[in-house]
Amino acid sequence: MNKVGFYLQDPKITEKMGKIKHKIAILSGKGGVGKSMLSLMLSLALAKNKHRGLVGLLDADITGPSIPKMLNLRDKKPTISGETIFPIESEYGIKVMSIDFFLKSDDTPVIWRGPLKSKAITQFLSQVEWGELDFLIIDLPPGTGDEALTVTQTLQGNIDGAIIVTIPSQVSKFVVKKAISFAKELNVPIIGIVENMSGVTCPKCGAFIETFPGKAGEEIAKELNINFLGKVPIDPKLSKSLDKGINLLAEDLETSITVKNLFEISAKVEELVEK
Amino acid sequence: MNKVGFYLQDPKITEKMGKIKHKIAILSGKGGVGKSMLSLMLSLALAKNKHRGLVGLLDADITGPSIPKMLNLRDKKPTISGETIFPIESEYGIKVMSIDFFLKSDDTPVIWRGPLKSKAITQFLSQVEWGELDFLIIDLPPGTGDEALTVTQTLQGNIDGAIIVTIPSQVSKFVVKKAISFAKELNVPIIGIVENMSGVTCPKCGAFIETFPGKAGEEIAKELNINFLGKVPIDPKLSKSLDKGINLLAEDLETSITVKNLFEISAKVEELVEK
Repeated sequence: MNKVGFYLQDPKITEKMGKIKHKIAILSGKGGVGKSMLSLMLSLALAKNKHRGLVGLLDADITGPSIPKMLNLRDKKPTISGETIFPIESEYGIKVMSIDFFLKSDDTPVIWRGPLKSKAITQFLSQVEWGELDFLIIDLPPGTGDEALTVTQTLQGNIDGAIIVTIPSQVSKFVVKKAISFAKELNVPIIGIVENMSGVTCPKCGAFIETFPGKAGEEIAKELNINFLGKVPIDPKLSKSLDKGINLLAEDLETSITVKNLFEISAKVEELVEK
Repeated sequence: MNKVGFYLQDPKITEKMGKIKHKIAILSGKGGVGKSMLSLMLSLALAKNKHRGLVGLLDADITGPSIPKMLNLRDKKPTISGETIFPIESEYGIKVMSIDFFLKSDDTPVIWRGPLKSKAITQFLSQVEWGELDFLIIDLPPGTGDEALTVTQTLQGNIDGAIIVTIPSQVSKFVVKKAISFAKELNVPIIGIVENMSGVTCPKCGAFIETFPGKAGEEIAKELNINFLGKVPIDPKLSKSLDKGINLLAEDLETSITVKNLFEISAKVEELVEK
């Protein structure tokens, strides 16, 4: 029995997860709000701060994995020894696991029904040898379906909490609030909410353009009494950098408001989970 | 046996679908690329053109339904008679069905594993009485999971095809190509690809900003030899209008390049499926 006392956890999961100080899921009811970008940037910021080599990033999006592409790690193959799978270590000081490492070609889709997806995630949680970590960031696919259910139920009582991501629009607010109810029903604490794609600055005249008008992030935080972790405006340079999979935190990106806000959010998250 | 000759289709589905001339799925490997917006705007454009009252829109996103919110129809309850469910008729001349009509409150999440989600979709396909329609647009959730599998397998050999949606970035291109392989493996014809969120025009200086730099739409069309249906730039006014759920095609939206392109895409789709 684990801490919760009722849920029987696979002893292999208990063992692997026991070596990880903080487990954080990135969750959203809505797709394309930037969960993968946020998961990756948080991991990189934590590694850059003082946790180099002690941050794991699990891409739990089984049908649309994008983390290895964003890190230019798609040609890597994880070492497997018996039942143990070793994560890929990125040059930025984070360890990564994704279904993408096991797919045959670029275009291979994962056509699996729910139970198979859940099995893949359970395998990742029980068989990946992360070693001692300070943080494991889990990038969940959108919605409140099988993958999200499996991760939260499997780690029940043993996860620090979830970070919720939304874009500023009311449609997003409406869908994302459902994700928060989902987390609450499954007893997953909410660490806070991040508002992503909060407008873009015109590179010519400096005007700020509200691409998807609204204040969903702040509104949800207020209405549901959860922490507002910050806003992340669109930065075309960051988008390009994720496309290339290189130099993510180098060059002029360090002068980007988007990257600056992401680092601040990472510091807040660190403070909140260490409390 | 249906046209394909191998797949046994529920006779109720065959009967309901037999009254619909064209069935089109909106598909993407990636979330948040604007599938729901595109599904809705295509339906509205078709109804406005010459199919008023003859367009159905099925919101097959079971865990994150947003169509009723975008049409301000959330307070409507479908009439049920025996095993038959009647869709909600919008003032814009389209008929709508969504799991959202059956949820208790705004925040209720649908926490279902795959088999339950598949069952809900099968029920929608077999029990909703659309009547005679020219078009049924099916808004699929992101990924290549249960909902997409169920719709494509259930309608196999009996669907005009899928419209693929991407945003311009390379990460999106990479994930969306998987969705196309998915459609091909399931023998779903590809009607064409739409590139959404293709930049935004600065309202102050008129400069064009590439928010998510790239040309994923045109590139995928060229590489995989499929029709390129068009680009849809971001229009904050459209986003606001979808948030309010009103006046979607009225007022200054008709002067919007975004809306103009959406109407052109709708005309192309009509032409392609009627060939």
